[in-house]
Amino acid sequence: MTADFVEEILRTSEGRMIGDGLHWVDVQEIRARCRTYDDWYPLLTEIADRYERLGVEALEAGHGVTAGEHFWRASMYCHYAQFYAHQTPALREAGQRRKVALYGRGAPLFVPPAERVEIPFEGFTVPGWLRRPPGVRRAPCAILIGGLESTKEESYLFENMCLARGVATFAFDGPGQGEMWFETPIRGDFERFTSAVVDWLATRPEIDPGRLGVLGRSLGGHYAAKSAAHDRRLRSAVCWGALYDVGSCWDSMHFLLKEGFRYCARRPTFEDARRHLECIDLRGWPERIEGALYVQHGARDDLIPVAQAERLAREATRARRVVLHVEPEGNHCCHNLYHLTRAPMADFLADTLSEP
Amino acid sequence: MTADFVEEILRTSEGRMIGDGLHWVDVQEIRARCRTYDDWYPLLTEIADRYERLGVEALEAGHGVTAGEHFWRASMYCHYAQFYAHQTPALREAGQRRKVALYGRGAPLFVPPAERVEIPFEGFTVPGWLRRPPGVRRAPCAILIGGLESTKEESYLFENMCLARGVATFAFDGPGQGEMWFETPIRGDFERFTSAVVDWLATRPEIDPGRLGVLGRSLGGHYAAKSAAHDRRLRSAVCWGALYDVGSCWDSMHFLLKEGFRYCARRPTFEDARRHLECIDLRGWPERIEGALYVQHGARDDLIPVAQAERLAREATRARRVVLHVEPEGNHCCHNLYHLTRAPMADFLADTLSEP
Repeated sequence: MTADFVEEILRTSEGRMIGDGLHWVDVQEIRARCRTYDDWYPLLTEIADRYERLGVEALEAGHGVTAGEHFWRASMYCHYAQFYAHQTPALREAGQRRKVALYGRGAPLFVPPAERVEIPFEGFTVPGWLRRPPGVRRAPCAILIGGLESTKEESYLFENMCLARGVATFAFDGPGQGEMWFETPIRGDFERFTSAVVDWLATRPEIDPGRLGVLGRSLGGHYAAKSAAHDRRLRSAVCWGALYDVGSCWDSMHFLLKEGFRYCARRPTFEDARRHLECIDLRGWPERIEGALYVQHGARDDLIPVAQAERLAREATRARRVVLHVEPEGNHCCHNLYHLTRAPMADFLADTLSEP
Repeated sequence: MTADFVEEILRTSEGRMIGDGLHWVDVQEIRARCRTYDDWYPLLTEIADRYERLGVEALEAGHGVTAGEHFWRASMYCHYAQFYAHQTPALREAGQRRKVALYGRGAPLFVPPAERVEIPFEGFTVPGWLRRPPGVRRAPCAILIGGLESTKEESYLFENMCLARGVATFAFDGPGQGEMWFETPIRGDFERFTSAVVDWLATRPEIDPGRLGVLGRSLGGHYAAKSAAHDRRLRSAVCWGALYDVGSCWDSMHFLLKEGFRYCARRPTFEDARRHLECIDLRGWPERIEGALYVQHGARDDLIPVAQAERLAREATRARRVVLHVEPEGNHCCHNLYHLTRAPMADFLADTLSEP
């Protein structure tokens, strides 16, 4: 890949990176020092190292809150380091593993903490992080699903928005994502893994099993819709960017996105991947959604056409309530407008999970 | 003033603006659309209008947390709108008043809320905002003091850091600052107003009067040190940038800073201001500090020379503990390194206010 890589990543992902918690100061440094694809991984890893050192120092000084924040941020830089390293799997895998390890060091120190959960399901281990709003006895809970490139560690700031609104969060990796990628590629039955999470949450006395919702980002928006269609215990679903099907967008997809899909499908070629991904298709599912549905999409999304979101919303004919929010200037997942578009999703979850 | 104004403000204050909570997306817009001094106030006011509208809409939809955040952010844009409008007092005063009004609309909606307090003192009204960490019965409390250009509304994010560490916050305007500027110019006895705040806090059952500290930013660092010297009930003091005296820096001061001092001293000319500001001098005070003292200063501060911070720390010979933190690459108040330099101050307060 060429030097354009850096410009391309920053053009499409700067808002996402800052919205997810990378510091503006650091993004400036990345912009200044990163010249080619080969610079990206070592530079972001260097920044992760820096935050990890600060985390260790803070911990030694007894400053748990500060340490937790540094470890979390270190994990974010590991995430973005491996972000597009599909062609160098060793880097990608190392980045993923270190991201989880760093997040785990921070987790008990977060305010409120994140509790590590591992749910056995059909021979797999579904890993997740549970966070609960302080002072709430039986909290509603939003299940959070990442996308093709995001995992359960990237939702920390969005979790804080839910928690401030009295909603617990359970972020997990499903097939093809984060930790589960090591166990299985993308599968066509992600919704069954969500239901395994619902089963587990229903056993927790701190969680109200009658007030569960689901949110997914990008490809996760696809999974969220399908999960809500599959499991009526999910009272609401939020698609933070919606993918209806891979098939109809494949040919026009950006190379980097195709490469991401190929990697997460664990297939050697694009053609193999395309065939495998025929399972990513919502046909027949939206009309089965009975809960509330919120679909957010950027009109300027150049990864997933807005028509995919419109189709999902249109076909959810039996949903109790459907909100389609198309942001005219929004890019993919409205990442460029994170400062305006995230709160409405947290509010939708809080509203629908507090309704009787 | 010329077009250089915009570049100068952003050069010195971009980190501060983002560190205080302005959105990166908006700062990009300011950079793109603001060409001259005359553009600054209307553009930032336009952005404030936008957040205010969002706040009203969120409130109408019953989304209190979102509304609170929008009103707070609107107030921040009003603050930065009037930031350097010393030569157009009508704008400056309008911006200050609207900032307070917007902050007040958000205050009961913050997580945790801010409570409006007005303390009568010698014919003046000392206004402040009290925020308490949830779930703490008798909390330690950090009294927060703004500087020449910052008021009790700009410490919201720093307050959140204290609150996450179990420390309540009381941010107030003293002589020459924010709301009190309308009552009195800068005075040489700011510390007496801090003590009035201490008196009031001592009456509150939710606050532990034996665990009070003080933090001040820039000129507020001067006030914090003097307050701790004056009132032994303050167990610790943090100088977020330290000004020892105005006299020895006056001649080399940047025009904009001199203009700010002239305005807050409410004097018609620089020469009048300089004479009035002879009262801003710590000589004889640091050696009276008995509590813990933390002084942070940027080695590259081009508003206040680092020697001023060093002198303060050196003369605090009776302080229980002195930490001088000079950040080699830090500018004024280390605003360019906000992501690294703020947590240590919150940690120092939490540590010193939890010690027996």
